[in-house]
Amino acid sequence: MIPLEEIRQISVVSPSKIVMLVIDGLGGLPDVKTGKTELETARTPYLDQLAKKGVCGLIDPVSPGITPGSGPGHLALFGYDPLKFTIGRGVLEALGIGFELKKNDVAARGNFCTVDGKGLITDRRAGRITTDKCTELCTLLSRIKLQGVKSFVLPVKEHRFSFVLRGEGLAAEISDTDPQKTGVVPYLAKYTKITTKHTADTVNDFINKSKGVLAKHHPANMILLRGFSKLPHIPSMNDIYKLTPAAIAGYPMYKGLAKLVGMKIFNADSGIQEELKILNDCYAKHDFFYVHVKHADSAGEDGDFERKVKVIEQVDSALPKLLNLKPEVIIITGDHSTPASLKGHSWHPVPVLLYSQWCRHDKVKEFSESACISGGLGRLPAADIMPLAMANALKLTKFGA
Amino acid sequence: MIPLEEIRQISVVSPSKIVMLVIDGLGGLPDVKTGKTELETARTPYLDQLAKKGVCGLIDPVSPGITPGSGPGHLALFGYDPLKFTIGRGVLEALGIGFELKKNDVAARGNFCTVDGKGLITDRRAGRITTDKCTELCTLLSRIKLQGVKSFVLPVKEHRFSFVLRGEGLAAEISDTDPQKTGVVPYLAKYTKITTKHTADTVNDFINKSKGVLAKHHPANMILLRGFSKLPHIPSMNDIYKLTPAAIAGYPMYKGLAKLVGMKIFNADSGIQEELKILNDCYAKHDFFYVHVKHADSAGEDGDFERKVKVIEQVDSALPKLLNLKPEVIIITGDHSTPASLKGHSWHPVPVLLYSQWCRHDKVKEFSESACISGGLGRLPAADIMPLAMANALKLTKFGA
Repeated sequence: MIPLEEIRQISVVSPSKIVMLVIDGLGGLPDVKTGKTELETARTPYLDQLAKKGVCGLIDPVSPGITPGSGPGHLALFGYDPLKFTIGRGVLEALGIGFELKKNDVAARGNFCTVDGKGLITDRRAGRITTDKCTELCTLLSRIKLQGVKSFVLPVKEHRFSFVLRGEGLAAEISDTDPQKTGVVPYLAKYTKITTKHTADTVNDFINKSKGVLAKHHPANMILLRGFSKLPHIPSMNDIYKLTPAAIAGYPMYKGLAKLVGMKIFNADSGIQEELKILNDCYAKHDFFYVHVKHADSAGEDGDFERKVKVIEQVDSALPKLLNLKPEVIIITGDHSTPASLKGHSWHPVPVLLYSQWCRHDKVKEFSESACISGGLGRLPAADIMPLAMANALKLTKFGA
Repeated sequence: MIPLEEIRQISVVSPSKIVMLVIDGLGGLPDVKTGKTELETARTPYLDQLAKKGVCGLIDPVSPGITPGSGPGHLALFGYDPLKFTIGRGVLEALGIGFELKKNDVAARGNFCTVDGKGLITDRRAGRITTDKCTELCTLLSRIKLQGVKSFVLPVKEHRFSFVLRGEGLAAEISDTDPQKTGVVPYLAKYTKITTKHTADTVNDFINKSKGVLAKHHPANMILLRGFSKLPHIPSMNDIYKLTPAAIAGYPMYKGLAKLVGMKIFNADSGIQEELKILNDCYAKHDFFYVHVKHADSAGEDGDFERKVKVIEQVDSALPKLLNLKPEVIIITGDHSTPASLKGHSWHPVPVLLYSQWCRHDKVKEFSESACISGGLGRLPAADIMPLAMANALKLTKFGA
């Protein structure tokens, strides 16, 4: 993986276009009866045709054996070493609900929890209260006043909420209040150096006041906070690649991640057809397009093999709209694998397809996990894909004389 | 290769079991007549069956083109970057004879050598004296008294011995006394900073006294010492992977290496059948098992192609005993290649086979160097195997949110 600073030195602006289509959770595992993965089961004539004309391979988002979260999975595809650029849990939770974090905001992930008469935690998830109840309680907590600091309490799902502090001199280097176990009292937020004392005091003040507000709301009668973090310092894609990048996505998390690296965001709620229409509309104004397809991952997480197959087939049948634009470079891949049989993200490498006039094509004749093993790209870190895309778009000059 | 600190953060304890069977020096080169390597020549129905059900690849213990010693080869398989965690030659020599090094001991590799009347080295190996003679001379040198420091002089083989100093304030940062050439006098041990002067003085005192003791023992009338080192700081496998690991091996070197990373040692002198019996006996109490098969390497080192083939066939026929235990993850590989035609370790990548319920199998139908080229694991650093084993045992949680 080449350092970003080196890429910055050799990247150049050109009119060529790169489209990166990310099918979330694309990689899978074989169905026990057929021996075929979701991608291998799906009827994908356009993807197969493109694989035949392009060059294929398998990517490891983080490292072999490592199951990536959505954050590291996407940062790697955007060309950033996910072991070097990390996103705090609090920031990711805020991005996930589309909250507009500012540079010095401190964000944490919150849980409603249950405590007994002695204050000991009996359930870290407050019996998984409904999202409606969560929303109601967040509204109550939002009314808490803190000295010189503004707080935001935003519902996520069930017992989960996002907590954000905004004000002067806030720091993220404070400890979690979530002890990650029951039978103990929630921790106080502790500061790690004197400059972070103010933040720890503010958080503890908020928690103390929350206790009063929530007293009558058993089972959600206390809160736990963890993963205090600020927006990470990530150089923009414009800075590194000299691209004018656009993101076309529906889910807040992915729009948030794209925004982190400086993409212009286009919202598309209703699937691949709408996304490709937007791609068409904004095509003239940008030179890099990240198009995100969420539902393959959701189907995988639900353990629904057939639904994942259908999502992939929908992408395939929409593909001509993308091909008609004749982008110089097309990348089709995923941010990680989500095999239906595992009902979650997994460590398995992800199929990747790169098409350009200048790719050296291989003998792969279909886009599938097993065919990609013998692809010309081999098995490589996901963060190598961006330099390959840039090269194929003739946007990288020579390294060294 | 992901940093160990990251693995430590995401590893979890679970009841699943990992068996890593290391056939020392497994990789080979083709016989000129048949065009087949040792592994390809061997009749290995069980290994081939497992390769068909699992996923294969090729590993580089250190880096492509680099021939590893047993130390780096094994550290890589245990998941440690062999370029970061290095074991001094002196320590390895002591481990190789099963000497129980303590934390602050300083160990060196020793050679008996021949010097002429002027003290100039004429033979760095003292005409390769017999191991019996070596043992006799080591006993004599063991009687040398040093001020406040205890010394151990232990025979290894022919002219080679292990030298260990034990006492307060010893340091390993002193220079070799072996000039690695003839026609010169042996060097004095030099200290690199004032805190290591005491050790250098002690070593030089020992050498001076040895000269007197050995005067009448031509051709072994002098000693050379090199590779002064202490036990390296290596976090244990329990610390990093939360495993309770066991090593089943016969040779001291491998038991020593396994002990370095915190494995419980089970001694097995009489080959694979005994090793698998021990595996069966201790199976309930551990969750990771390193089983070491030495004789493939010995046969390779002796240039005995046929004997190496037979060792591999013996392992294959014993395999059902391992399979009957139904470990969740099986890894079969080597710590390096030892082609009989090269009569020594080599740089060629080593075939690796991983089997688990969750591996994404490939089209490999036999366990061989040539088949592994198209395996689903691709070609990867050996240190990536442990994270893959952990992932397949479902012992790693997600990296990043």
